[in-house]
Amino acid sequence: MSENLLIVHGGGPTAVLNASLYGAIQCALEHGGIGHIYGANNGTGGVLREDFIKLETYSREQLALLLKTPGSAIGTSRDAIWAEDYEKMADICKKHHIRYVLFNGGNGTMDTCGKMHKVCRERGLDIAVMGIPKTTDNDIAVTDHSPGFGSAARYMAASVQELCADVRALPIHVVVMEASGRNAGWITAASALAADAGYGPDLIYLPERPFDEDRFIDDVRRLLEKKSGIVVVASEGLTGPDKKPVVKPVFKTERATYFGDVSAHLANLVIERLGYKARGEKPGLLGRASIAWQSDVDREEARLAGYKACEAALAGMSGKMAAFRRSGRTPYASEIFFTDIDQVMMHERKMPDAFINAGGNGVTEEFMDWCRPLIGGPLPQMLSLNRPHGVIL
Amino acid sequence: MSENLLIVHGGGPTAVLNASLYGAIQCALEHGGIGHIYGANNGTGGVLREDFIKLETYSREQLALLLKTPGSAIGTSRDAIWAEDYEKMADICKKHHIRYVLFNGGNGTMDTCGKMHKVCRERGLDIAVMGIPKTTDNDIAVTDHSPGFGSAARYMAASVQELCADVRALPIHVVVMEASGRNAGWITAASALAADAGYGPDLIYLPERPFDEDRFIDDVRRLLEKKSGIVVVASEGLTGPDKKPVVKPVFKTERATYFGDVSAHLANLVIERLGYKARGEKPGLLGRASIAWQSDVDREEARLAGYKACEAALAGMSGKMAAFRRSGRTPYASEIFFTDIDQVMMHERKMPDAFINAGGNGVTEEFMDWCRPLIGGPLPQMLSLNRPHGVIL
Repeated sequence: MSENLLIVHGGGPTAVLNASLYGAIQCALEHGGIGHIYGANNGTGGVLREDFIKLETYSREQLALLLKTPGSAIGTSRDAIWAEDYEKMADICKKHHIRYVLFNGGNGTMDTCGKMHKVCRERGLDIAVMGIPKTTDNDIAVTDHSPGFGSAARYMAASVQELCADVRALPIHVVVMEASGRNAGWITAASALAADAGYGPDLIYLPERPFDEDRFIDDVRRLLEKKSGIVVVASEGLTGPDKKPVVKPVFKTERATYFGDVSAHLANLVIERLGYKARGEKPGLLGRASIAWQSDVDREEARLAGYKACEAALAGMSGKMAAFRRSGRTPYASEIFFTDIDQVMMHERKMPDAFINAGGNGVTEEFMDWCRPLIGGPLPQMLSLNRPHGVIL
Repeated sequence: MSENLLIVHGGGPTAVLNASLYGAIQCALEHGGIGHIYGANNGTGGVLREDFIKLETYSREQLALLLKTPGSAIGTSRDAIWAEDYEKMADICKKHHIRYVLFNGGNGTMDTCGKMHKVCRERGLDIAVMGIPKTTDNDIAVTDHSPGFGSAARYMAASVQELCADVRALPIHVVVMEASGRNAGWITAASALAADAGYGPDLIYLPERPFDEDRFIDDVRRLLEKKSGIVVVASEGLTGPDKKPVVKPVFKTERATYFGDVSAHLANLVIERLGYKARGEKPGLLGRASIAWQSDVDREEARLAGYKACEAALAGMSGKMAAFRRSGRTPYASEIFFTDIDQVMMHERKMPDAFINAGGNGVTEEFMDWCRPLIGGPLPQMLSLNRPHGVIL
């Protein structure tokens, strides 16, 4: 009886989630002796429904497209998992001769991964359960960074560069760009790298610092005395000094609360309090699905994380997540190590103080140096003519 | 006394406005005998302030970056121009020995261009005034298409492709993508080309057809019976059967009315009337500033339009705009001809009936064939596994 492998995706997709899937499949095919390489159709729900996609039936050429396909080729889910579901999933693995299970996802999925590992251990089942980190928000603990972040960071830096080139052409005064990452400001901060290519943002507001409206208005007013095209980047999760979100909830469901746009809110503040023209921009889902701005470093690390987690599972390791540490600074190099799932479970990683400037409206050089290699090659060079900034109408 | 050239930009930037600027400078440098190649700093306002950038002082290497720089390197404006301003501009041209003037912009700028030509003629001034078409919305008359549209179309098609790959991974039910083009649906329609790469939108609503909420809800309901991840593309300028915008104005200024987001409005309709999860997406300014999705066909045509308009001005032509007609279908080829500014002034070009499907919720093959060559090379190939669509939670 051949032994089977199961890959399960959880949470929102990234630009390189499928690259990790590719790495895992690649490892399983090279290893040989694996019967089926199952993809759970739409996450843990797919496991519970015994809805499996046989990934070994696709050609090498088809599978190679995974490296450049955003989303999740096998689907994903945000299903809530109950205690009895773990027992069920263990039964299903036994029934389908699944000996290796790889969970690819963020903090919530790593929690699922750790619990599944424990249930299998407690029941004496010989099933190896391993985690592959995935998040655009870079909020997974222990690892230096996670696959998905580098591409989201490159998208944000490149988009802000393009936006700055556009905004500085016209006397539109203030544009506020909203970045994802409700509790951690990593993507918001990455926008600073646009300055490397000559068109950086003017102000950056991170969720790690309380947002003070008066201070924001002062920051903008001071800049408007010197130039007319201002680009502000703000996290979707800004909270005020009272720790409450700066924008009100729009509607609530059982499982989540939906907030209005921070970008529109800050733009309206500028209009109301300064009387200047302002608009909000929010790339939304495009920021995690961009193939044009996929980071080649991120893609390769994602592939490797999938490969190494699979390799470790096949060697019998269980209850651990593949993580990254830096093994070289110039040139950048990274290596994978394995960390206990317990250590990463449900712990959210935020920006350290050393990465945030004293004024709380920008980042430090230390952050730029840390982030730069992760976004892959340099941003495109653009021409910035030495001319007075657009006239204020 | 050497003769000088003046280039003036008007209206919103595109991804290839600077490519036209490059073409004009290239022609002037090759022609020789031109003293200064002036760029008006921030549009007609820059002319009136006699605020000129000497473009001949930049190196060839710097100028070549214009081909890949979004925005407007010499700035642009939306300044209103009064009758006496044309007299002033003519005086300023005389004073600065400007013998050739190129206006690069959309319908409003072509109006300015035509009036400037007339004033110069009436006063017997030997000044050649020529127009270069520029618009992302593709709403300029006479020409088959305008520089700026191909890149905006490529951005929209590629973004919808990425969005579809993302949306179909998760049981998020309906995503509404908002496209620019308030009165003309060209960019909205271009999203259909995403289907060439396997991930096309499900429904497309153009401003050329009255938007019926009940019909929209029926369209979505029918699709939700078959699949769970639906992508709708809607124009920012949809109007109802009463010809009023489907979203209310948010605020008004002297010169413009600002409307709420159509994408958010349609998403809310789905939530309220069907009880399904929905969200709106709006790429906003990024759609006209994207270098990653700049169309190589568009860039080259933009460069050529700038070059040819300059060449014609130097040969003494005046009061005309460079326009495109197709000279080959397979393979695509285009050629430039010159049309009287009078014929294009203030006339808005909309999608013809033959490009819109019978149901008013999509486009025809004829449109796809017309649009495909303009977006440049094919969209990236992606993997779409044959699996049941995401489960509805």
